[in-house]
Amino acid sequence: MGAVAAPWKQLLLNALDSNSHLKHSSFFQLATVGSNGRPSNRTVVFRGFQENSDNIQINTDTRSRKIEELKKCPFAEICWYFTESWEQFRISGRIDVIDGSNPDSVKLQQREKAWFSTSVKSRLQYLGPNPGLPCISEQPIQDLSIDSSTGPVGAFCLLVLDPDQVDYLNLKSNQRVEFASRLDATGAKCWTSERINP
Amino acid sequence: MGAVAAPWKQLLLNALDSNSHLKHSSFFQLATVGSNGRPSNRTVVFRGFQENSDNIQINTDTRSRKIEELKKCPFAEICWYFTESWEQFRISGRIDVIDGSNPDSVKLQQREKAWFSTSVKSRLQYLGPNPGLPCISEQPIQDLSIDSSTGPVGAFCLLVLDPDQVDYLNLKSNQRVEFASRLDATGAKCWTSERINP
Repeated sequence: MGAVAAPWKQLLLNALDSNSHLKHSSFFQLATVGSNGRPSNRTVVFRGFQENSDNIQINTDTRSRKIEELKKCPFAEICWYFTESWEQFRISGRIDVIDGSNPDSVKLQQREKAWFSTSVKSRLQYLGPNPGLPCISEQPIQDLSIDSSTGPVGAFCLLVLDPDQVDYLNLKSNQRVEFASRLDATGAKCWTSERINP
Repeated sequence: MGAVAAPWKQLLLNALDSNSHLKHSSFFQLATVGSNGRPSNRTVVFRGFQENSDNIQINTDTRSRKIEELKKCPFAEICWYFTESWEQFRISGRIDVIDGSNPDSVKLQQREKAWFSTSVKSRLQYLGPNPGLPCISEQPIQDLSIDSSTGPVGAFCLLVLDPDQVDYLNLKSNQRVEFASRLDATGAKCWTSERINP
């Protein structure tokens, strides 16, 4: 893992680059399977690749519904449409949920790094009331504050998606490529690609 | 159904209106559950509401993978993010797959209407090679043509999503509302709404 970059990664970096003037170019839709067996879908923010890998990072709140969903079914599919370049990436894989109780110290460090990579303002949301629960007051929440040196709070959770299949569609050139991975004898991930009909 | 418009429908119409100068404002992401039990997610185009209802129409190819997925699990969740107004609609419901073999003549008429509502150019894609299958030639497909009066071809399929839950999030006002429906004693759909924490 990481020795050879996945062949779709450069396409994605190019798309990010050519759409970077648009704030929403770092937003994508993450689908999971709900506890009732129905699909669930929401917009989240791309928080970069994990160092030396093709793994995609997302920050979320441990209290959000997707956490319980991912504990039952760890698979997800990202649908990322770039509105300027008319490119779509469907990235399917398994998600590792890294909250403060994770026993792996390397993962806890990744979580801490992700925390300090976000703005102080966006850290505040993890101090707010439980997302998805009824508003108990019509009043706006009183201003919260957090010291910039404070480490990750309990509600902060890092999601790491390890892609195993990527479907790339370019609506300008009308080309579509499917990237599939398998593990070789040494456990390293190998990618193959194939042109498919759009 | 249809007697009283769903309370979220006006919010959605407003969002469509305030984002209408953006071509991609009619695109949303549709999540389904794949035959392997994993989530599946792709961008599709909003084709309007079904007449006098809150049902959402989508055109697709009967040969696309989502058709077999929907036959196994008919539930879907739309995630529709409006990049100008910073609003998100998560619309969950059941999808009715209407292809040319549908026994219901009213549904076949809806499918025909949907066909003639699309541009002649977009009808051509249903004559192209099987989507998702390997490209058998490096050559571009020779130009296809179709008469504008020709009715829906076999590969043309209308999807109708009947929403039963809508999660609305406004990132500018930081407000979130959950709309839930139930059927009353007469079988009519009744909506309730509740402010929830974003």
